Amino acid sequence: MSFHESPRFPRGFRCASRNCGLKPKAKDLALFVSDVDAVAAAVFTRNQFPGAPVILGRETIVGRRLRAIVANSKCSNVATGAEGLSNARRMAAAAATEIGATPDRVLVSSTGVIGVQLPIELIERGLSGMSGDLQSDPMVGAEGIMTTDTHPKALSVSVGDATITWVAKGSGMIEPNMATMLAYIFTDAAFDAGTLDRLLRAAVDVSFNMLSVDTDTSTSDTCALLANGLAGAVDEADFAAALTAGSIRMSEMLARDGEGANHLIRAIVRGATDEGDARRVAKSLVNSPLVKTMVHGADPNVGRLLMAIGKCFDCRINPETTDVWINRHAVVRRGERLDFNDAVVRETLTAESVDLEVSLGLGDASATAFGCDLTGGYIDENAAYYSS
Amino acid sequence: MSFHESPRFPRGFRCASRNCGLKPKAKDLALFVSDVDAVAAAVFTRNQFPGAPVILGRETIVGRRLRAIVANSKCSNVATGAEGLSNARRMAAAAATEIGATPDRVLVSSTGVIGVQLPIELIERGLSGMSGDLQSDPMVGAEGIMTTDTHPKALSVSVGDATITWVAKGSGMIEPNMATMLAYIFTDAAFDAGTLDRLLRAAVDVSFNMLSVDTDTSTSDTCALLANGLAGAVDEADFAAALTAGSIRMSEMLARDGEGANHLIRAIVRGATDEGDARRVAKSLVNSPLVKTMVHGADPNVGRLLMAIGKCFDCRINPETTDVWINRHAVVRRGERLDFNDAVVRETLTAESVDLEVSLGLGDASATAFGCDLTGGYIDENAAYYSS
Repeated sequence: MSFHESPRFPRGFRCASRNCGLKPKAKDLALFVSDVDAVAAAVFTRNQFPGAPVILGRETIVGRRLRAIVANSKCSNVATGAEGLSNARRMAAAAATEIGATPDRVLVSSTGVIGVQLPIELIERGLSGMSGDLQSDPMVGAEGIMTTDTHPKALSVSVGDATITWVAKGSGMIEPNMATMLAYIFTDAAFDAGTLDRLLRAAVDVSFNMLSVDTDTSTSDTCALLANGLAGAVDEADFAAALTAGSIRMSEMLARDGEGANHLIRAIVRGATDEGDARRVAKSLVNSPLVKTMVHGADPNVGRLLMAIGKCFDCRINPETTDVWINRHAVVRRGERLDFNDAVVRETLTAESVDLEVSLGLGDASATAFGCDLTGGYIDENAAYYSS
Repeated sequence: MSFHESPRFPRGFRCASRNCGLKPKAKDLALFVSDVDAVAAAVFTRNQFPGAPVILGRETIVGRRLRAIVANSKCSNVATGAEGLSNARRMAAAAATEIGATPDRVLVSSTGVIGVQLPIELIERGLSGMSGDLQSDPMVGAEGIMTTDTHPKALSVSVGDATITWVAKGSGMIEPNMATMLAYIFTDAAFDAGTLDRLLRAAVDVSFNMLSVDTDTSTSDTCALLANGLAGAVDEADFAAALTAGSIRMSEMLARDGEGANHLIRAIVRGATDEGDARRVAKSLVNSPLVKTMVHGADPNVGRLLMAIGKCFDCRINPETTDVWINRHAVVRRGERLDFNDAVVRETLTAESVDLEVSLGLGDASATAFGCDLTGGYIDENAAYYSS
């Protein structure tokens, strides 16, 4: 899969972003627009305190058609009751007016602090005239949705005559159970709504749903896929492969930029009895604070890997068939620590990307999870996030 | 429940500790002995890579009789294969010889680094003559089992004419699923083995099993209760109450001394549909990195509390009936953030002990979990534990 060197939009998609006064100076409002109605699919957080935009989004996506996505950062509009829901509706209406569509064609997202009412007047004022700013670089939209991200995130790839473009944000409160914090995927390929929904869920399942920065599942997670059809039909298998590959790559970008993180950690589990076991063991590895600090310290304390595998109480695991590698260096065979070259393994743990590979030796199922190391930066950022 | 000002042993129990050369200078070997055979019950880690001492301990406890516990720190004898199990047996045999008992009456524990063979000769040499050091202060034994603990932990209480004494250690890799890292409970009350086992499991269920420092379940967790009967029979209900109260108090001591921790966090959940839901929500709160850093930063970012409640996907939760308090200050009512006095809540978060109280408003079940804040100290300690 060859991704474009600079991300670009599919035909008919444009975006804009602005500062509307939620943040002191940085961009805090983004608008993504398709020239024509796009077939759409979306998945949302499973958190039981969903934000107002998620409640509204579930209603909107029933129509399976979108013209635009409007998103703000700084304030997530969560735990804000009836007033919050009314503000989310006003945000959809303001964006619809601005682009000449109806509110039921606009998906709303908000990200940021929980429990504060949305300054809706600032957003309405900010949206006014914003259609005049629409342009073709997806990175501009990505800038408008950043919170603690250190850089904007976008990605694109060609499939036949069509393009798929990902725009996403997220670096803390990230263990999506339906999607990552905010991930928008745009394509000019033509698909019916049912197919699009199926393709999105399959791709999310092995990418954003296997991503964890900190085990905390946000109240705002949203992943939407918009297909405006301007490139016509493309091969479904090719499209599915590209959609999956790009979603995995974007998940890795989000993990790499996890709050305070210096390393991407990939936990690759194979030889499991079934996929459920493989997924649980892979997630357990990237979620363990002791594994995460081990990578941070580049210290080959491989007992922690066994601990993290073994604490999956309900998975079928047999120490005597369990082998482990760190960046292809064997460190555990049949449940026992090998007498490996400490200096070599220590060195490989300093690489930006650390692969923890586990063979359970019991079956044919496999899974990969995406995470990051745990550092003082995460603590510093989150011990004083609200006030900042 | 009035605990003794200085912890003391029940009749007939004594202990000793020494440096046997596993650590440079600090004590690394502890021996706990009953003058007569004690009825015993024990629970062990559910981690699927149990250490050699846990494998042996499960075998030993079948006899339901113990004369002694021997424990070393620095090396956990985990992931050490057949040689490790043989070393654990040698350790039991050496302790048995020293006190004039048989090896099947000796429970062995090891704690420390995973994946290193136990220097068994040092331990055998260290045990030799150790019965001459036996004395009556339980803190001396507690010293011998410390790893990253900042202080030794013991506790005692009277029940009628009998005494119950807890000796424990543990500050990282702590989310026991059967017991805490190492917790030994001694009593001179008389109980049959079946009753003792039932009483231990009931107490552990609401104490050590509700404790989490870092979500990581050790491969060595062991909790044993020895009753030598020298005080005769005591009222079972009184004993159960004292056993539970002391086990909760010891869990709080372990949480308070969690690696790098400055605060004890108690998550008290009531109004749940059933106890399972209450336990899961309480655990989710003490395990959330964003809740833990919120307490560390004394920042009343209460949206994180809703996030942590709401990510219990399979629990019955209704935002509209959910209320939350921090140290008795109401911060959330019916799923919405209240307009509380920020300065007051900020101030209460600086207290050494922080109670997060949740009413789910759905039923009568409740549960309490014990945890601690997440600090740079945890990162520092665990990014370089192996080498230190």
